[in-house]
Amino acid sequence: MSVGAAPLPRAEPGEHFLAEIREQPAALRALLEHEDEIARVAAAARSRGPAFVRMVGHGSSDNAASYGVYAFGLLARWAAMRDSITLTVHYGTDFDMSGCTAIALSQSGQTPDVLEYVVRARRRGAFTIGVTNDPGSELAREAEAVIPLAAGAERAVAATKTYFTQLAALSLLAGYAGGVGPRVAEELRVVAGLLDDVIPPLAGRIAEVALPFAYVGRMFLIGRGIEFATARELALKLLETCRVGAQPLTATDLAHGPVAAVDSLFPVWTIASDDAALPAVLEAADRVRAAGGTLIASGDAADRIAGADYVLSTPRPPSPLLAPLLSVVPGQLFAWALARAKGLDPDHPRGLSKITLAR
Amino acid sequence: MSVGAAPLPRAEPGEHFLAEIREQPAALRALLEHEDEIARVAAAARSRGPAFVRMVGHGSSDNAASYGVYAFGLLARWAAMRDSITLTVHYGTDFDMSGCTAIALSQSGQTPDVLEYVVRARRRGAFTIGVTNDPGSELAREAEAVIPLAAGAERAVAATKTYFTQLAALSLLAGYAGGVGPRVAEELRVVAGLLDDVIPPLAGRIAEVALPFAYVGRMFLIGRGIEFATARELALKLLETCRVGAQPLTATDLAHGPVAAVDSLFPVWTIASDDAALPAVLEAADRVRAAGGTLIASGDAADRIAGADYVLSTPRPPSPLLAPLLSVVPGQLFAWALARAKGLDPDHPRGLSKITLAR
Repeated sequence: MSVGAAPLPRAEPGEHFLAEIREQPAALRALLEHEDEIARVAAAARSRGPAFVRMVGHGSSDNAASYGVYAFGLLARWAAMRDSITLTVHYGTDFDMSGCTAIALSQSGQTPDVLEYVVRARRRGAFTIGVTNDPGSELAREAEAVIPLAAGAERAVAATKTYFTQLAALSLLAGYAGGVGPRVAEELRVVAGLLDDVIPPLAGRIAEVALPFAYVGRMFLIGRGIEFATARELALKLLETCRVGAQPLTATDLAHGPVAAVDSLFPVWTIASDDAALPAVLEAADRVRAAGGTLIASGDAADRIAGADYVLSTPRPPSPLLAPLLSVVPGQLFAWALARAKGLDPDHPRGLSKITLAR
Repeated sequence: MSVGAAPLPRAEPGEHFLAEIREQPAALRALLEHEDEIARVAAAARSRGPAFVRMVGHGSSDNAASYGVYAFGLLARWAAMRDSITLTVHYGTDFDMSGCTAIALSQSGQTPDVLEYVVRARRRGAFTIGVTNDPGSELAREAEAVIPLAAGAERAVAATKTYFTQLAALSLLAGYAGGVGPRVAEELRVVAGLLDDVIPPLAGRIAEVALPFAYVGRMFLIGRGIEFATARELALKLLETCRVGAQPLTATDLAHGPVAAVDSLFPVWTIASDDAALPAVLEAADRVRAAGGTLIASGDAADRIAGADYVLSTPRPPSPLLAPLLSVVPGQLFAWALARAKGLDPDHPRGLSKITLAR
């Protein structure tokens, strides 16, 4: 037996996914080296006039855009929306987009309808910004300005550090748009340090939290305001890596119908951050408990969720808007651990490839 | 036995829900009697300046707002978005809303944060419109203009005819905003007639379609463009009346992760309308079939979904934008039949009441 050639080293299932979750603080520091570029892009957007931002992307990139609505609203008082790609690309609606900033988010910079959107938005007068992990991509060529995510190669199919750096890039861009860029950059540096501290202990205990969920087929993830992006992103991770029918809801939407489906086999993951939307999340958690649902509490106000079955607290960021860069981590780690508990490989979900060319 | 007092007539489970699905053509005709009022509201919105629409609502009302994005975009070339209530109400962001039209959708006219949004939007200069089934409600008092849904009392907790009339009201408002109101009104009259014809045969065969899904715990509902609203609304119906973990996805988002969860126990309901977004829906259906998922095809292009296990076709409307008023019906009936098959009462989902006062 000792004479055989050593087998080629083979990646452990989920090895890349876990490594990339751990690389997020380093990816954030790498992004911050591009602070000057981001400041220049924000100045260019300001110089083009009125403050209306249209964001497009699919999957994790669209989830990051949900966060962008709040980053631009709170830091720059700019109205921002997740735009309909279909309206512009498929239906060919000829909006006048002069005075708009159009931000296209794509890890690969190759998403077909996102590219087509950028071409059309630019033709219609928008200032177009590509946010991508590949500065040599077609998106980078088609957009007037580029923000490189600088996240390094992402080998796991399910995005973690590119979603995370998209949030950071949007907060920095919005900060510079609103004249508070240097403060946001400084706060992001603090967040990187907080992540260095929190990831190892969370990673160490997550397997024991995930194991009881190995037979769960569906979950709700509840956030509100800035944390709705986190709910959306974690639901997507659970769908693609764990094949759980995981659905994001705003805290208030839970009461408008979906709570009727909650029972003891329907766990609910809540993201509680200490901001003005917290009371709505606490009320939603009360409804879940009343319906007999298992309750997981995460975020920097996780300890405010009374009667939670599991509590995964994250540190409080220097300003509330940055909470989603911390609160996403327990859920990413949970997805990794749950996939492992189910015997799935979160690096290679069935039927997916790293670059999605769907129409 | 014959001497006892006759028992009080007791509603059959789901009796109201089914009756209200059937009442939708009549509700549409009742709404059309308010055409002049809607035309006046549109003229007032036009007179207030630039064309930017912010819509708010929860649950079915938010789903109707998804449709409004397309109605305003396609008929009036107005940019429209589902606004963040949290940003304005909880975070207190003091946007300048002069030149905006803010549309608040609430069946009861009592949804607390929607009301608060209207008060703040009006104070910040928006032209505020309340769309409600109760013209005596607080929403009707707080908004500058009111569009009465005229849907009549809705007794089932899960909304059907109020969602449906919200779509009609938004298309008519957008039509008048874009100078094509009379044409839209005429097309809506045609839709009412098409519904008269299609509801009885669909209702007659829906139980046999629903029965095989009695043990299903989760589903995806796929639409794109104008039909994403339908996917959202039907997912909500299935959640609240059937306790199915039903999740709406755009056709393209399916490929960006969620398809990894599809297998033979994970049915996918597709809404295929014959418009420019259809190729994306057909491609999504191909992915579902490749993953082994059971496929239900609905909409006026249902027969274009190759290899569908169930086909629920609806008539083609006079113009593609009105397709969601027809394509929603098979799913509403399916929810009714599936709830009955599961022994649930769709008139009274557990834990819900007709008027939701959640924070």
